[in-house]
Parts: sequence; structure tokens; C-alpha cells
Amino acid sequence: MAKNIDVTELILRDAHQSLMATRMSIEDMIPACADLDQAGYWSVECWGGATFDSCIRFLNEDPWERLRTFRKLMPNTRLQMLLRGQNLLGYRHYEDHVVERFIAKAAETGMDVFRVFDALNDIRNLKCAVAAVKKAGKHAQGTICYTTSPLHTTEQFVSMAKRLQDLGVDSICIKDMAALLKPHDAYQIVRGIKESCGEDVRIHIHTHSTTGVTLVSLMKAIEAGVDCVDTSISSLSLGPGHNPTESLVEMLKGTEFTTSLDKPRLLKLKQYFNTIRPRYAEFLSNITGVETEIFDSQIPGGMLSNMESQLKQQGAGHRMAEVMEEVPRVRKDAGYPPLVTPSSQIVGTQAVFNVLLGRYKVLSAEFVDLMLGFYGETIGPRNPELVAQASKQAKKEPITCRPADLLKPEWDELRTAALLLPGCNGKDEDVLTYAMFPQVAAKFFSTRDKGPKNLGKDPAAKPAAAVATGATSGGGATPMHEPVTYDVKLNGHTHKVTVSPV
Amino acid sequence: MAKNIDVTELILRDAHQSLMATRMSIEDMIPACADLDQAGYWSVECWGGATFDSCIRFLNEDPWERLRTFRKLMPNTRLQMLLRGQNLLGYRHYEDHVVERFIAKAAETGMDVFRVFDALNDIRNLKCAVAAVKKAGKHAQGTICYTTSPLHTTEQFVSMAKRLQDLGVDSICIKDMAALLKPHDAYQIVRGIKESCGEDVRIHIHTHSTTGVTLVSLMKAIEAGVDCVDTSISSLSLGPGHNPTESLVEMLKGTEFTTSLDKPRLLKLKQYFNTIRPRYAEFLSNITGVETEIFDSQIPGGMLSNMESQLKQQGAGHRMAEVMEEVPRVRKDAGYPPLVTPSSQIVGTQAVFNVLLGRYKVLSAEFVDLMLGFYGETIGPRNPELVAQASKQAKKEPITCRPADLLKPEWDELRTAALLLPGCNGKDEDVLTYAMFPQVAAKFFSTRDKGPKNLGKDPAAKPAAAVATGATSGGGATPMHEPVTYDVKLNGHTHKVTVSPV
Repeated sequence: MAKNIDVTELILRDAHQSLMATRMSIEDMIPACADLDQAGYWSVECWGGATFDSCIRFLNEDPWERLRTFRKLMPNTRLQMLLRGQNLLGYRHYEDHVVERFIAKAAETGMDVFRVFDALNDIRNLKCAVAAVKKAGKHAQGTICYTTSPLHTTEQFVSMAKRLQDLGVDSICIKDMAALLKPHDAYQIVRGIKESCGEDVRIHIHTHSTTGVTLVSLMKAIEAGVDCVDTSISSLSLGPGHNPTESLVEMLKGTEFTTSLDKPRLLKLKQYFNTIRPRYAEFLSNITGVETEIFDSQIPGGMLSNMESQLKQQGAGHRMAEVMEEVPRVRKDAGYPPLVTPSSQIVGTQAVFNVLLGRYKVLSAEFVDLMLGFYGETIGPRNPELVAQASKQAKKEPITCRPADLLKPEWDELRTAALLLPGCNGKDEDVLTYAMFPQVAAKFFSTRDKGPKNLGKDPAAKPAAAVATGATSGGGATPMHEPVTYDVKLNGHTHKVTVSPV
Repeated sequence: MAKNIDVTELILRDAHQSLMATRMSIEDMIPACADLDQAGYWSVECWGGATFDSCIRFLNEDPWERLRTFRKLMPNTRLQMLLRGQNLLGYRHYEDHVVERFIAKAAETGMDVFRVFDALNDIRNLKCAVAAVKKAGKHAQGTICYTTSPLHTTEQFVSMAKRLQDLGVDSICIKDMAALLKPHDAYQIVRGIKESCGEDVRIHIHTHSTTGVTLVSLMKAIEAGVDCVDTSISSLSLGPGHNPTESLVEMLKGTEFTTSLDKPRLLKLKQYFNTIRPRYAEFLSNITGVETEIFDSQIPGGMLSNMESQLKQQGAGHRMAEVMEEVPRVRKDAGYPPLVTPSSQIVGTQAVFNVLLGRYKVLSAEFVDLMLGFYGETIGPRNPELVAQASKQAKKEPITCRPADLLKPEWDELRTAALLLPGCNGKDEDVLTYAMFPQVAAKFFSTRDKGPKNLGKDPAAKPAAAVATGATSGGGATPMHEPVTYDVKLNGHTHKVTVSPV
């Protein structure tokens, strides 16, 4: 009997977040739900991460409504979300009561599995969220952000898993957001956790495919005893996305492992998303190959392009090599945080400051907070001279407590502010949306009644529309909004001439 | 001490054959040769396959001159070629003396490693070529074409390896041209060959990446003891191409295996081919993702599109599903040949005939020859009724001997014919070129003195050139060859108007 390997499907969340800037509309997801629900997945990741922000910022779509739709259309499958611990889905720490309200509401609306992580791997920032998930009777998954540094060893990751287990999580996720996890290390970490926490502890593994090696890492993790792996339907996979679900299924044939996925349904899903992908051409990542440079530079692709654009804005594009050399130094001074949002931006911006203005002549406000412990604890000690400099600059003392312990109750204040906004429906859902994205929520509430926008465009319809416009308004006085095409005779030949609006 | 895994780099042959229709010009290869030569490869595959044909058909380039260039620029690395056994690089069986002449000339010109295969895995079709390579003192690699069918078992592949060993080959290659080789089978076959032929027998493995699983298969082959793997620099890899060289290197970190490749040189090569790839945009494969359907359909992607276009030409595009169901039946009747050129075309065309005209109402000439043994032996018995029908239709008896045994000496005749062609240089090289591609060679000899063509185009230069043309010939009587752009005023606004040639 082959051992069954569970699979989490990423197509409705991280796949389009990684490959098409989180722009997929609910309208394009709905036709896939029945097949996703019946294909035999352990869970379908479909909410959280950047999707909440994207819904209200770009799609005029209520994220709570989206969750209700998924719950209705996928009654047989666990729904899964990604949650940034004490940050929820926003960009700051929230007071515990807000965290509890958010999780209770998400659970009530249909969420089953909460994957909870912290950018610094500070377990204190997961504690409140994990307890709230448990209280709601749902599946709490504690997450280890995988990274590499002189301090990040197998033993250290295993010890973090042990501490997550002590917190009472239902499973542990190894989250490899930068595709840094090599096969040998994947095997060692999974084996180490199983041996330290018990063979019964449930381990999930999440990898991206950027470096091209991580399907092999999934194989090794499976050999080491991993219970569930994350993949994405092939038509929206690879590059900065994930390994293809269908390849995982085939990879296991003949081995002592198997999945219980339904291949005909996977094929239907592949063909369906093949028709959706080109509709989002303007948002598609232009990376389709592999990038292995990160293994040496330690700098994720997104961080690299951020730093490049910062430098160019300062007319210093030619100093990129210096900045790349500065990053490891800044990261060391900051106690080796994993480089993931927001620590990647904080470290990257400080490295740019150091090169342009002189090393640590100016500290960014976020770097000050990182050095003073306001994001949480780092794995390594932070440079004490810089901590002193940060403290002096910000006129505040470094902290060692859990950052959220310093926050005052804020629910009533948030509720009062939200309810004042035109279009706010007065429910906890809207208060939570406002809490996470105050400005964007205000605008969204006021336009919500216009209904969801679908930013996908039929790639075939575009030229036809242009010709049609040409036929009705060609040469007339109507202001141009689209290209107009004429047939023009030149030297006895007929040419198509296109006039584009200025 | 980690075991060293040798690597064959494919960028100069199979990578651009699989991904850009074999169009890369020698001019775009030359700047990479020094790095390829110093990077630590066991060999660089750079000749044979479709490159010979492409050189004279599209690039006005002498393939023998290309080989001399490689030999001069890569003095430290084994040069490797792919040879279709008794077919050499052409599309028919050649008499033994022609095979011997070709191999002697290639060896003399600088070739080190000859990978010799036969589409039907009929070892008799490899015999003459292997002997000629040995006689020239070069490395003869015997090849097993990997495929799947009820008759293709691990034992069968191991037994073929044993017979190749008996032929005196220097190494054995497992060639997985359709990316069908799954990790478990890769392990079993490599282990089986090592156990049957001896641990010292040298095994190479060649996979494509079409199905997304084969980097895992390389890992398993390495664990089973494979000696050398084929990969391609990442900027020209994946899709119907190959696994990225850099990913292979990183995948082995921390394991008991390693490569001796120089990472900084690999990075330089990656960056270099990143600048070359967009120059061939018009030839690039539009498949960048993975295709796993072949595991069930058994029909390689290239064969699928061939059959589709045949059907469409007959106005029967809607009957594709029937043809796909017919293919396995025809393949079984033909004795389960691997589906690779030319057997894939022969089986595919016959399946189309069967659907459009009635099953086996008409046999194609090539199908007749396949059924009568004129391509060689197949692994399974061929349907005796169809053999009788083929024999009757073609008025010839089935054969059981090696097909080339029926051929009369042809060298003198080929030489006489070649020397009559305008532009033929009278050397054996030209006679061999003519022998393989009589029509194309005749045209090539007559234009050779104009020198090699580079079909790559600078993607950035195109719009600039169009504007420049517009500036000098806009509106004049010069015949148009490129789009011309005008500034046109319409309703007080200036528009750019582009007129394209008809």
C-alpha cells in the first residue's frame, strides 16, 4: 500500500498572487470551484495573503463575500488562508482583541485552515492568532519561514517546530517563499521535526519554483515523511509561482507514495485556467525561466527590483553592485531576519541609504523600529551600537516584550471610525476591513454597490473592437478612445492604417 | 568525499533545436565558447541532430566549418554529437561505407563523442556506426530510446543495455526525448543496468523537461549511480527543452554528489544567452509550461500538432479525438515502436488515414515499409494480416535482415553526382553533405560563398528601423518592405500612423 500524500491547491490564492499580481476576479474563479471541490485536495488555499488587499483596492470586491462564495461552492473541501500573525492581513501589529475578532469572523464565514506566520519567525507574534483559531475550533497551522544564514541551521528550524508544537498547533508548515530550500535540507528538516516532535506531527511544505530545484525538494520532503505539499494547476505554475500539481501526481507513480487526486478533473482545471491566464496578460510576471542567483546573493527577486528602482529614482542605477554587497552586512547587523515582507524592504532600503548617504548616516524609521524590537525578536543579536543610535534618533528605548503587549484596546475606536464612513454596512466584517486598510476601505465602501470588477480582458476581442470603432467613427469628429483602422491605397496597394489616440 | 557527477551541456545543439527551431547561428555561439570550454563540462553537445540540416537549409552555413570552429574554440572539452545510426543525419538508411566515411570525417574534423541511436531501438542499425567510431579511436555511446508500452519494461531496457555493451560501446545513454521517464523508473533502469552490466559501465541520461518531472528523475538516476546527466544553461531551458544546468548544480548541494562546474562561468553563460534568446523570438516555442497529458495519451506534443494540421488540411479538425484514440491501436499493430522521428510521423499519419478513409483502407508508403521491416525490427510482433496487406500493396516481401544489408555500394555514385553540382568543393565533406540532403545541398553549394546568415534580429532595433525607413521613403514610390510610420494630424492631434507592406 502506497502512503497517501495530501495536496493543498494554490491556484485561487498564491498562484495568481505570484504570477498575475493577485488580480484574478471571483468571476473567473467560480467556474473552477466544482472541479476543485471534487478533485480530492486536502485543502484549497483561497483567501488571505494579498488577496484581501487586492479585492478592495483593485477589484471593488468584498473579500468577505468572496469567502462566502467559496464556502458555498466548495462544501467538501477545507478552505485555507494565509495569515500574517499579529499583522493579520495588514501591515502593522494589531491589538489582541482585533486579532481574535478577525479570526472568529473568518471561521464563522467558512475558513477551515489558518496558516499563521511571522516575518521574523518570532513565535510570540503567532501566539494570539493560534489561540483564537483553536478557540474557534478550526485548524491552526504554525509556520516556519525558511531562509538561509549562518544562524539558520536544521537544528534551529527543528527547535522552532518544537516551540510551535508546544503552542498547540494542529500542524506545522515549512514555508519557502524564495525557493531557497534544496532537496537535502528539505529532507533533513522534515526528518528532524518528525524525530523531535513525533512521527504523528503533521507537516506541510510550501515552496515556490523560482530556482527550479524545489520539485526535487518536495520529493525529498515526501521521502522524509512530509504529510502535505502545496502545488498549483500547471497552467498557472512555475517561474515565481509553484510546482505544477499534475507533475507532482506523475512524479510519485511507481514509488511508495501516491496522491488521491482525480486526474481527469486536474486536466479540466488545467484547460480552464489556460483560457483565463491570457486574459490577465498585462499583469503576468515576465519571468518564466529559473533564477538560481539567489542562492549566493540571498536577495529575493522582488527585493532586487525594489532596490533597483529606488536607486534609479536617485539617478544612481550604476551603484547596484555596491548595494548588493551592502545587503548581507545590513542583514547581519539586524540579527539575520528572513528576507520577506516587510523585513526585505526594510533591509533593502537601509542598504540603499548606506550606499548613497554613507553607512548608517541616516536610519529609516522602519529600520529604527526593527533595531529596537518593535517588529519582534530576531534569531541573532542586533548590532548594539546601531541599537543605541536608533534609540537616540527615535527618542525611544529598545523593547524586549511582545510588541502587541504595548498596544491599547483599539476595537471600539476602529468601529466608531468605520461606521462614520459612507457605505459602511455596520458589520464586524467592515470594521475589520477598515482596521486593516483604512484609506482603501473608505474608498471601497463608497463604491461597493457598483459590484466586482473583472480586470481580465479577452485577448482576441481587442483588435475586433478597434475595427468596429473605426467603422462607426472613422475620420469623424468623435474624440478617439481606441485605435482606428482604415484601409488606405498607396502605390496601387491597399494597406491597413491604424491611427491611435494620443 | 562527494561523488562527482559529469555534465553534458546541450545549449549549442538540442537546447536551440528544441526551443528555437535549430536556428541559432554560429556567430551567436562563438562568444560563449571560451566559457563553455572552461566551465568544467564532461562534454558539450554541439553538432548532429537537426543542426546539420538547419545549417545548409536556413543558415547558409557549412556544418563542417562549424565543427572546425568549435574544435578551435573549445580545445579542452569533449565535443559531442547526436547520430541517427544507419540514417546518419538524414532520413534514409545509408550503405555501410557511407556511414564509415561520415564518421571518419567527423572524427578527423574534431568530434570526440558519438551518441548513436535508432528510432526503433534496433541494435543492428547501430552496429556499423559504433564500429566506425571505435575504429576512429573516439567515444562510442550506445543509446536506448526510452518509451512506454506494455512491452517496454525495466528488464527489456536492461537487456538492451547488455546487448549494447556486447557491441563494445564506451558508454550507454538513456534518451528520454518525450520527458516520459518518471523518477522511480529512472532509478530502476539505471540500477538494473549497473547490476547487470557492472558498476563500471558508464551511463549517461538525457531527458527533456516537457512534463515537469524529469529533474526529479535526474536526482533518482544519480542516486542509482548514473555517471553523466544532460542539462542546458537556464536562459535556454525548460518547456520542450531541458532541465537547467544551474538548478542541477544547486540541487546536489549537501548531498553525497557534486558537479565540478564553475558557477561564475555558468552565470556568465546564462546572462549571455539571455541576450541571444529574444533575437530569435519568431522561432521560439510558445510552450513555456508543462504538459503531462502525454503520460496517458502516449502522443508527444510535436506528433499531436502534426496530426492536427493534417486533419485541418482535410477539413476534419473536429475528428482529433478519434485520431487520438486510433494512435495506440496503430502503434500496437506496428509492434510498439518508440514514437520518435520518423516512427511518430508514420504512426500518426496512418492513424489519420484510418479515421478519414476507414481503418487500414489505405496504407501510407512509409507504413508499408515499417510493417515490412525496412526500418528494422520492432520490440513487439507486427499484425500479420497487415503485414500481408502491406506486402500485397507494395509487391515486396517482408524482410528480417538488417535493412542496410540490402543496400548496394553507393559512395562512388554519390561522389560523382555531388561533384557535378556548381559550388561543390570536391571534398568528402561536400559529398557527405550531398548524400544526406541532395536537394538542399545543391542549393547550398551554389550560395555558400555568400557566407553564413544570422536569422536573429535585435528586438530593440526593429521599431527604430521602421521609423528610419519612414523618414527617407515615406510616401515615395519605393516598394515597401517594412512598416512605415508617419505623423498624422487628426482633429488637431498628432497621431503616429503605421503603414505595413501588403
